[in-house]
This record gives sequence, structure tokens and C-alpha cells, in this order.
Amino acid sequence: MIIKDLIVTPIAFSDPPLLNADGVHEPLALRTIVQLIVDGGVDGGDGGGDSVVVGLGEGSGGAEVARRVEQVRSAVVGLSVFDLNGIEAAVNAALGGDAGPLSRRDRRVVYSMLDVAAHDAQGKLTGLPVAELLGGRVRDRVPYSAYLFYKWAGHPRSDAVDDVEPDAWGEALDPVGIVAQARALIDWYGFGSIKLKGGVFGPDEEIAAIRALAEAFPGLPLRIDPNGAWSHDTAVRVATELDGVLEYLEDPVLGIDGMAAVAREVSQPLATNMCVVTFEQLAEAFAKDAVQIVLSDHHYWGGLRHTRELAAICGHWGVGVSMHSNSHLGISLAAMTHVAAATPELAYACDTHYPWNRAEDVVMPGALEIVDGAVRVPHAPGLGVVLDEAALERQHKVFVDSGRSVRDDSGYLQRFDPTYSPTLPRY
Amino acid sequence: MIIKDLIVTPIAFSDPPLLNADGVHEPLALRTIVQLIVDGGVDGGDGGGDSVVVGLGEGSGGAEVARRVEQVRSAVVGLSVFDLNGIEAAVNAALGGDAGPLSRRDRRVVYSMLDVAAHDAQGKLTGLPVAELLGGRVRDRVPYSAYLFYKWAGHPRSDAVDDVEPDAWGEALDPVGIVAQARALIDWYGFGSIKLKGGVFGPDEEIAAIRALAEAFPGLPLRIDPNGAWSHDTAVRVATELDGVLEYLEDPVLGIDGMAAVAREVSQPLATNMCVVTFEQLAEAFAKDAVQIVLSDHHYWGGLRHTRELAAICGHWGVGVSMHSNSHLGISLAAMTHVAAATPELAYACDTHYPWNRAEDVVMPGALEIVDGAVRVPHAPGLGVVLDEAALERQHKVFVDSGRSVRDDSGYLQRFDPTYSPTLPRY
Repeated sequence: MIIKDLIVTPIAFSDPPLLNADGVHEPLALRTIVQLIVDGGVDGGDGGGDSVVVGLGEGSGGAEVARRVEQVRSAVVGLSVFDLNGIEAAVNAALGGDAGPLSRRDRRVVYSMLDVAAHDAQGKLTGLPVAELLGGRVRDRVPYSAYLFYKWAGHPRSDAVDDVEPDAWGEALDPVGIVAQARALIDWYGFGSIKLKGGVFGPDEEIAAIRALAEAFPGLPLRIDPNGAWSHDTAVRVATELDGVLEYLEDPVLGIDGMAAVAREVSQPLATNMCVVTFEQLAEAFAKDAVQIVLSDHHYWGGLRHTRELAAICGHWGVGVSMHSNSHLGISLAAMTHVAAATPELAYACDTHYPWNRAEDVVMPGALEIVDGAVRVPHAPGLGVVLDEAALERQHKVFVDSGRSVRDDSGYLQRFDPTYSPTLPRY
Repeated sequence: MIIKDLIVTPIAFSDPPLLNADGVHEPLALRTIVQLIVDGGVDGGDGGGDSVVVGLGEGSGGAEVARRVEQVRSAVVGLSVFDLNGIEAAVNAALGGDAGPLSRRDRRVVYSMLDVAAHDAQGKLTGLPVAELLGGRVRDRVPYSAYLFYKWAGHPRSDAVDDVEPDAWGEALDPVGIVAQARALIDWYGFGSIKLKGGVFGPDEEIAAIRALAEAFPGLPLRIDPNGAWSHDTAVRVATELDGVLEYLEDPVLGIDGMAAVAREVSQPLATNMCVVTFEQLAEAFAKDAVQIVLSDHHYWGGLRHTRELAAICGHWGVGVSMHSNSHLGISLAAMTHVAAATPELAYACDTHYPWNRAEDVVMPGALEIVDGAVRVPHAPGLGVVLDEAALERQHKVFVDSGRSVRDDSGYLQRFDPTYSPTLPRY
């Protein structure tokens, strides 16, 4: 059960041109895959020999993140994979702690990958699925939402935005396109709720898109997330016009005080993955009643155990819990599914980008399928996914060959529209 | 890993006449011991045969508590011992849930015993100590405080309080007696901090006792806990007179608002195990800055996992964490030690009554010793203690023969002083 090695592999994989308040997704999404190589015995006494298990983790991408994970390698080698407190402390210390250059959140991003990999290894060592390590599944199927994006017909071939290489998804730049995209996602995956990434067009166009979705899919819960692109007055106006239509309104404006001011004037619950992203912000946000739903995300809340902790806190304070997503592959989907399964406080379908990115996954297909809008929680030990080593190699080469080092949605959009400014609020 | 049976054994064991704000400890303390009988396989597939493990738990005593635990038996048999969420939900439902006759806290008291027993069984099934199941030990030795009590020379032989059967501890009814008691406890166990149970005599007498302790044991952290026996003015006066002498002041007055009012006027941190005893009270207490230290107690906070959760919450809100105790035996000491070991937020020596009650323990001696003021965290699987079946039988017979059903410190004191009223505040 002793960590023998940590292998860090930055990867890149195809991503459609999904629009958001910050710009547009580049042709490649970046991600980091970690493998914790762990001695195969639980009891120190019989852990000898060559038996090892490999715990898998996945998190934010890019060269700098991969470098940070590499930086903690020697600090975690030699620790027990069950010693999450020790691994977390070692990661913190190796990254310089509070006195170092990284924020707590940035350090948690690194720890989170190791936390997931440690849970996977713990499960493989004990024969238990990760959901059971986290206290037991309260649901055997985890519902996800159809995550809609305004998008171009394809990535531009050149710096002219209308010279595109069309992708299979097609264009979605108006209510008709958004409804068609929803229809496709629901036909394929059976999603039972819908989230629209907003903040791209003016509020009236996005209100029209939500209304079109409500009409096309009566009864399905709807959310919109403009990522803080709206002014206070716009947020209140949109909320008022969509009164009774939205399940919740996600990050209409920026900041705890801004959200609190909107919350006082609207009827919908407000959700966030922007103004509350660390435990240190909970006290202020709750005291000000700024958010009624926190979107958990194990990738930056510090892994699976701390995500459970976040949900428990929200439960005690009477605040709802949903789940945030970023572009990700199957290891993260497995981790999200296990922690969601073990979280009684979760009362909404989780977000996932998986349909947009799954074609170039680095785990073997079949373990995780979205059927009837939900992923069945694996019963195999650990996360229940198997690394596809050839695919990992392939996507690592894509990363290396790309020369890419960071995600830059704004810069990518500015290539085609030099006047574009990502400054928020926009509307 | 499936729960096959739950065995509930109410027990009683000798307790010295320890005085507190509610009265005096009776000759017998009551406790409940639970045994979870669990199928020995982790994998459902190879769990057949006769192999079983037994998980041990200990909690509050008395006939009614034992009856409540019996009441959940059929609801938990058949569940996986790793399914803590499921066990907790089953206990809640079997006890009637929110609509039933029991408070959440009373239901958590029942669940807590099963939670401890489940963790013990999980450890035995996986080969892991409970501290490792809780995220890993951050300390290998858990410090405890010398828990001082005003006490009579022994329990009365009759209804005349001065006709006593002297015990080995001797009388402690003034500063000299308290210092002598502290000396004995420190000589035997090497305690490095001291807690005095107050609220028994007038504040000046208890201030004098604390001053005598400070003089006799320079440098040792000191606490006093009058269990809400003081008025606001008395609390502020005691705090002012003991400024710079106390590590913290525990429950000087009753209620969140009362504590908040005192906190505004005194320099010491205030601790509580009275005005904040459920998760539902945290938001109000923290918002009012009523307490600066919460005394955790897995016996009523819902077991080991929820105690970790409480500590994490306190950490995020900048509130300190210490640990409360009631009269208990070795299973609880083991559970307290494991959860304390896995709790980074814990920054104080824990309370324990163990020295007062250990002579009639129901676990085999040797696994848990207080040396240099601390208990070494067991490395054996589970809690690391072994049930002494003969002792359990013996102490169960003591319970049955006693005819006792509830703890009643006030009624016991009233036998000797019919004018005694437990109404608080008293001073």
C-alpha cells in the first residue's frame, strides 16, 4: 500500500468550438493524467514482491499543472496510499504551503488528482468500489444534464471564422440550433435535464433559447450559466422574465456581494462555481445568502473526500448541491460518478462535458455509458475504469506535438475577432 | 461484508462519586456495547462460508438506549458494513425519522455506535486501522488531559452523605484536594494538561482551585467547565480574574446567545459541548461568534466520519476543535483515539474519563495505555481492541442486577440533600 511512483502525463484531445463568456474552446482541450504506482499489499508485512496496483487520476491540463504534479512526486513516494491526510500535507508542503507562490485552490488542484488516484488504488487493494470507500452509494445511477453550448459549425481552417471545417455537431448560434443540439444529445443519451452555457449572446437571445427549450422539452429542468457575464440589472431582468422556467440560475453575476444582491431580488435559486470555489469562501457566502446551490467539483475542492465534506457542509447550512464540469475524459467521469453516488445531499443532475470529448478517451470503452441520462455507478474495485495505454500515449503525443501549454479561450477567439474583449460583465 | 447480526448489551460499571453542576455520579455508570456480526468477505463473491468478523461499538447507556439500538437491528442486517450512508439512513428510518419521537441528536446517538462498530469491522476486513480508514493518522500519539472532579471520599453507604465507603481516589472538595488529585493523575499517566469539572462550588472557590493548579503545575494548560452553572456576570468575572491563566473556558453559561454575550466581554476562547451539539446549530453559533472551540464527541455527532466532518467545518470557519468525554470504557477510548489521530484540526488534548472507569473495562488490557499523557494509536486492524467476553457478561449482569435504567446525577444527590436543585444557572 506504499506509493512507489507517480507518473504524470499531460495530454490533449479534440474539443469542438464551444462558446462561452470567456471566448471559445480551442481545437484541443488539455488535461493531466496521473498514475500512482502502489505496492500491492495492504498489510505492510505481506506487501513484498512485485505485485503493484495502479491508481488513476485526471485533472486540469497544461504544462504548468503537469510540472506542479511532478514537483510533488518525491514528497508522496513512500507514503501509504491510505494516508490521504499525509499525502495532502506532503503536496501542500512540496508546493510551498501558504507562504509559497500557489493559492490554496491551485494546490488543491494538484492534490485532487492524487486523491482520486489514491482512492482508485485503495479500491483495487481492498476490492471496494470508490463509492463504497466514500461511505456507500445512495444511488446506483448518477443523473447528468445535457450540457448545451453555442458553437460554431466547426473550428476555422484559417483566421477567417467563416472558413470552417464542419464537425458532426453542427452550428448552434440561435434558439433553433440550441434546440437541435439538445434534441441530438437527448436522443443519444436520454438526458432528463438541460443546462445551457450562456453569456455568449445578448440576454434576449439567450432568454429566447431557454424559452425554445422549455417549449421543445416540456417538464425538463432547465438551467442557464452565463459565467458572470451579466450586470445586476440584466441578471434581475433575465431572472424575472424566466420566472418559473429555470430550475436554477448559475453565476448570473460575479462575486459574492453581486450574487447576494441578485439573490435578494429574484425567485430562482442561484448556483455558483465561480464566487465560491474554496472552503474559505463558504462562511461569507452563506452569511450573505449569496448562493442557494454550490456546484461541487472534486478537481478543485480537493478530491473526493473533500467534495463529500463540501456537500455535507451545504446540507447542514441548508444550501443545495449540484456538480460542475470542465472538459474531461473517463477517469474524471468515473470519479464524478462515484462521489456523486456517495453524496446524499446531491439533488440535481450533474454537469458533464463528456459527450463533447469522449471520442478520444484514454480509458477502455464500456465501463461508463450515459443511458437514460445517467451513468451506472461501476461495481468493480476502485474507479472501475481501465487505462488504455495506447490511447494515453497517443493523446500525450498530441499534446507534445501541439506545442500548447495553457488553455486560452479568449486568445483563440481574438484570433478571429481582434476586437473581442473577455472583460465581464458584458451585458 | 454483509451485516449478519447486531448484538446489543447494556452494561454498568463502577464509577466514583464525581460532582458536577447536575449532581453527582452514581455508583454505577451505564453504557451500551454493540457487536456487529459481519460476513468475512469483502467481495460479495467469496464471502461465503463461516468466516465472520465482529465490529465493536460503545455508546450511551441505559435501558431506553439499548432498546433503541435493538429497534434498528432488522433494518441494518443485510446491509454492507461499508455502506455507512445506508446504515445511517436505515437507523434514521427505523427510529421514525424527523416525524418520529426522537430528535436528530438522539438518533445520531444510536447511529454512532453502529458507525464505530462498522469502522472496526471495515478495518478487520481490510487489514487497516480505523485511523487509516478515516484518512490517515496525523499523529501517532493522541494527548489527553487530566480530568479533575470535585468528589466525595467515597459513595455513601446509606442516605447519610458522611457515612461513606472510602475509595482509592480520596476526597477532593477544595483546592488542596484538587491539586492532590491532579498530582496523582499526572504521576500515573503523565498528563500534560488539566481540565477541572466546575460548577459545583461558588466561583471564588473554583477560581482558587484553578490558581492552586496553576501554581502547582506551572506551564500546564488549564481549563474549567462549569457546565453552564454561571450567570453572565459571574462568567465574565471568573474569566476576568483568570485572564491569562486558562487555555479555554468551557460552557460558562447556557445557550448560544448567552455564550455569545460572554464571548464579547472576555479574552479567553470559549468552548462548548452544550450549546452546540448538532450540525444544525453550527450556522447560528458561528454567525454569532458564540464559541471559539467546539468539543467534538463522536458519540452524539454521528460517529467517526461525521466527527471528521465537524472538525473540517470548524477548520474552515476558523473555529478550534477539542474533544469531549463522558464516562466510558476502552472501545470508546479506542474510537476517540483513532478519530483524534486522523483529525488535523484537533489542537488540544482530548478529555477522557477513562482513568476513573478503566478498572472494569470490557476489552482486554494492554492495547490502550495512557503514557506521558497520550494514548498510542493502535496499528492493529480496526479499533485495535479485543472484547473480553467474560467481562462483558459480568458487567451486563451488574447492569441487570442493579435495576438501574437511566443516569440521574441530580436524583442521586437529592438522596443525600433533598434541598438540592439542579436548575442552572446556580451562581
